[in-house]
Amino acid sequence: MTLLIKSGGSAAFPEWLSGFRGILPQLTVREWDDPNVDPESVRYALVWQPEPGRLARYPNLQVIFSSAAGVDHILADSELPPDCPIVRMVMPETRQMMAEFVAMAALMLMRRMPYFIRLQQASCWGEPADSPQARRRHVGIMGLGALGAHVAHYLRQIGFQVNGWSRDPKSLSGIDCFAGQAQLPAFLAATDILVCLLPDTKQTRGIINTPTLNALPRGSSFINVGRGTHVVEEDLLAALNGGQLRNALLDVFAHEPPDEHSPFWRHPQVIMTPHCAASPSYADRARHVAGIIADYESGHPLRDCFNRSKGY
Amino acid sequence: MTLLIKSGGSAAFPEWLSGFRGILPQLTVREWDDPNVDPESVRYALVWQPEPGRLARYPNLQVIFSSAAGVDHILADSELPPDCPIVRMVMPETRQMMAEFVAMAALMLMRRMPYFIRLQQASCWGEPADSPQARRRHVGIMGLGALGAHVAHYLRQIGFQVNGWSRDPKSLSGIDCFAGQAQLPAFLAATDILVCLLPDTKQTRGIINTPTLNALPRGSSFINVGRGTHVVEEDLLAALNGGQLRNALLDVFAHEPPDEHSPFWRHPQVIMTPHCAASPSYADRARHVAGIIADYESGHPLRDCFNRSKGY
Repeated sequence: MTLLIKSGGSAAFPEWLSGFRGILPQLTVREWDDPNVDPESVRYALVWQPEPGRLARYPNLQVIFSSAAGVDHILADSELPPDCPIVRMVMPETRQMMAEFVAMAALMLMRRMPYFIRLQQASCWGEPADSPQARRRHVGIMGLGALGAHVAHYLRQIGFQVNGWSRDPKSLSGIDCFAGQAQLPAFLAATDILVCLLPDTKQTRGIINTPTLNALPRGSSFINVGRGTHVVEEDLLAALNGGQLRNALLDVFAHEPPDEHSPFWRHPQVIMTPHCAASPSYADRARHVAGIIADYESGHPLRDCFNRSKGY
Repeated sequence: MTLLIKSGGSAAFPEWLSGFRGILPQLTVREWDDPNVDPESVRYALVWQPEPGRLARYPNLQVIFSSAAGVDHILADSELPPDCPIVRMVMPETRQMMAEFVAMAALMLMRRMPYFIRLQQASCWGEPADSPQARRRHVGIMGLGALGAHVAHYLRQIGFQVNGWSRDPKSLSGIDCFAGQAQLPAFLAATDILVCLLPDTKQTRGIINTPTLNALPRGSSFINVGRGTHVVEEDLLAALNGGQLRNALLDVFAHEPPDEHSPFWRHPQVIMTPHCAASPSYADRARHVAGIIADYESGHPLRDCFNRSKGY
């Protein structure tokens, strides 16, 4: 049986292989475009942004593994085999990397690093005007799934006040939880640093828009580690330019890489990172997937499956 | 009795006053250059970088308060009244702000933010090449006083491995402690992110030099939140340019603000901040000092005194 991999290109393939080595001797691991692969032998596919129509070519495909936590890059394929389960990459490493990245981003925006970075570029010394402390700031996390809940607890542990918002009501120790459209305004009004960690669904697309941003206290901050499609970019720009938002750290964009004319590149209140918040190494991901395949092959149910009716 | 304040200039004086209001009715609080102050009435001075010779003019001065944790800016005065106690500003807020700043800096250097910031300036999208996690990185903290010990515990709590180094042996739960010149090489060899939080003494001046930096593993990071005088700047530059250091975050400099020709302003591996790691608000500092004066006036011993024989 064969596992096909499309994630990171040829450069990453040796590292993927090293992670599978010695765990599942009966599994043959091949590159996505290897011409010697018999389509009938393909039982598993591990992918990031597969070409539309491609996964439908494997008649014996049993499981699709997403190379990341989100699966939107797979669902974009209109010919996707409709009943083939999709497994999300939900690893302890992903959760912890995301928590550390969001903590860094929240501390950077609280401490006005976009401002100090621009000052440094101009060879200017600034004034340490305010005295921000995490215990006096409320971070509001949109999305309380496996990732969001872990991030919320981590930020609480390092001293921030933390609010959470999710579609269905949740209860998390030490976190003020809000749910549904009805409680969104109250959640936003109580938030100084907004973090988007939602899945990409029809309901969440464009959710970061002018009404949402205007419901935050004036001078708030915004962190996007969800998907670029959550944000109406013109609305985000207007909020930054008008002072409603003090600053933002953006790790994801509607188009990646963003167009060379994107106003975010040079925006003095914005820090951009290249979709790197939570990318465990290929070797770590390979070991994780090998474990799931081994369990599945010995008759256990498949873990971390994407729920098509809920959309995440 | 009068308290004279020199810290933050006239712009800051109203905020200082607001913090003292209502706590010590018998205390008159005045600006440093107020011409109507009778020198004989001055019992307390709260200062940042007082002009040499100035403190010697007050015959009834009983306590000098430093407006910051360090006292080097007071000791620089060769006419300093030799027996007048100096109180360091050691507040819970200072410790916590410092811990949050160092955590931010360590996460930023681990996640290669200097590199991503330069990429953004060039409108370039980067590659999330590595997968750094705090639990795989060792932060080494030089200086384990009130500030350093708190920072060490905080970094441990957020997931880093933490080493500490101090002049005299210390024992801190969860921290690998090293002491003295003899154990400095072992401490450095076990450190990926070096944090300088030492006091400014004869022994520590210039301690961050080529031998020190070369004892770190190649590709390490450096954070200076101690004093600029700890660093031999040419040696730091050489370590950055030669790749021995991957990057650095510098909050303090030998001359502040640094000269306009300082190579750090434009250095692609360096992030600079304007000595803002741990500056509690003037109002918070005023309330803290008022509490110490109230205790002292009711006969309790003076807290947080600088020890002239130890040098900190």
